[in-house]
Amino acid sequence: MTKPYQLYYWPGIQGRGEFVRLALEEAGVPYEDVARLKKGMPAMMASLDGDAVDHPSFAPPVLRAGELLIGQTANILLFIGAHHGLAPRAEQGRLWAHQLQLTVADIVNEAHDTHHPISTNLYYEDQKKEARARARDFTAQRIPKFLDYFEGVLQRNPGRGSYMVGSRLSYVDLSLFQLMEGLRYAFPKAMAQLEPSYPGLVALHAMVQARPRIAAYLASKRRIPFNEDGIFRHYPELEK
Amino acid sequence: MTKPYQLYYWPGIQGRGEFVRLALEEAGVPYEDVARLKKGMPAMMASLDGDAVDHPSFAPPVLRAGELLIGQTANILLFIGAHHGLAPRAEQGRLWAHQLQLTVADIVNEAHDTHHPISTNLYYEDQKKEARARARDFTAQRIPKFLDYFEGVLQRNPGRGSYMVGSRLSYVDLSLFQLMEGLRYAFPKAMAQLEPSYPGLVALHAMVQARPRIAAYLASKRRIPFNEDGIFRHYPELEK
Repeated sequence: MTKPYQLYYWPGIQGRGEFVRLALEEAGVPYEDVARLKKGMPAMMASLDGDAVDHPSFAPPVLRAGELLIGQTANILLFIGAHHGLAPRAEQGRLWAHQLQLTVADIVNEAHDTHHPISTNLYYEDQKKEARARARDFTAQRIPKFLDYFEGVLQRNPGRGSYMVGSRLSYVDLSLFQLMEGLRYAFPKAMAQLEPSYPGLVALHAMVQARPRIAAYLASKRRIPFNEDGIFRHYPELEK
Repeated sequence: MTKPYQLYYWPGIQGRGEFVRLALEEAGVPYEDVARLKKGMPAMMASLDGDAVDHPSFAPPVLRAGELLIGQTANILLFIGAHHGLAPRAEQGRLWAHQLQLTVADIVNEAHDTHHPISTNLYYEDQKKEARARARDFTAQRIPKFLDYFEGVLQRNPGRGSYMVGSRLSYVDLSLFQLMEGLRYAFPKAMAQLEPSYPGLVALHAMVQARPRIAAYLASKRRIPFNEDGIFRHYPELEK
């Protein structure tokens, strides 16, 4: 029987697809990670701009929900959040959660550009010098600026517990978990120095990691390990 | 009397705020462009993360609608689209319009990075060599890739006329107009070569430009001219 959702994303990396995987796992809804199935890659490519597709996507991830085909990570989370209780129902809370997700997307883009500052069409090895300069700026200036912001959001949240939005878990918490995971993997030295300044985010990461469905997912083969093909890459020379 | 909306954005540039301005102008709703008023800059900064702000923003633009404070350009357009008939009402169309807007945001980010590939904290002059390399990739690879995509979306749209989404104007059309404007300003040589391949987008740009409210706006002092402080900058050396 077909599962309710099909996720189309590159099979070998966490990448942007991981934000969607975490939301689907926490929601407990069955999904197929299509490109990881046998002969899944042609199906993934067809989902982007095949002839049968009315609404083509520029890039994966793409989520199929029956007839609906949704692209852009934050947009997919907007959908999952609304349908699976992972975002506030009221407009104000819904927009606020989405604003935070779009800000996560911004730092994720910048994390990507630390290893590809000149071109995604060139190898990392061919833009290493520029990568070093960009990574230096990212770890010294941009990570603190973004984490200051997210920690400030946590501190201002009058809701109970330590959630980003209101008093319940939302996809934003899951995305912040993944952001912290990725930054720790890519820039362990910088993060070891920075983390004491962000107790709220550290606690949030631990809280998400301990949620039963997330813990089960992280221990499963469905979780692809970080690697140097993804967005968060560990190149020790970028921390020197 | 207070107008229904206040826009908080840098006063001297079109920047990301321009996508919001175009939507408000087309919707015909009165708004204050706060930072351009006398003593407006402190008000803008306070809107980002002042003590009275429950939902701080990482960066402008921010739109105030009564009690509601909304950040992130695409998120603001999601709100304006829903409240002023500039997006489909049904979920499927709403998500589709938003997906396209987020893809516009992606190319806008990349356009920004052509003049700041290493760091937003350094002057353009201090990253000129890298800017040249990134701009070369942007004009040769990325602009065609994105415009191929958007032209393809237009061609697949079964709706009447030449709109991006369905058979009515949406904020996506306004944003595509602004994207074409910005690319023409920043990279006139590249665009002169490329445009014959994108007749749909060229026609869309002309259609938006001729809409009475947009035409009036563009002729007014409310439209800030492009300049070399914004996102789309014309540095002739980047096209060599």
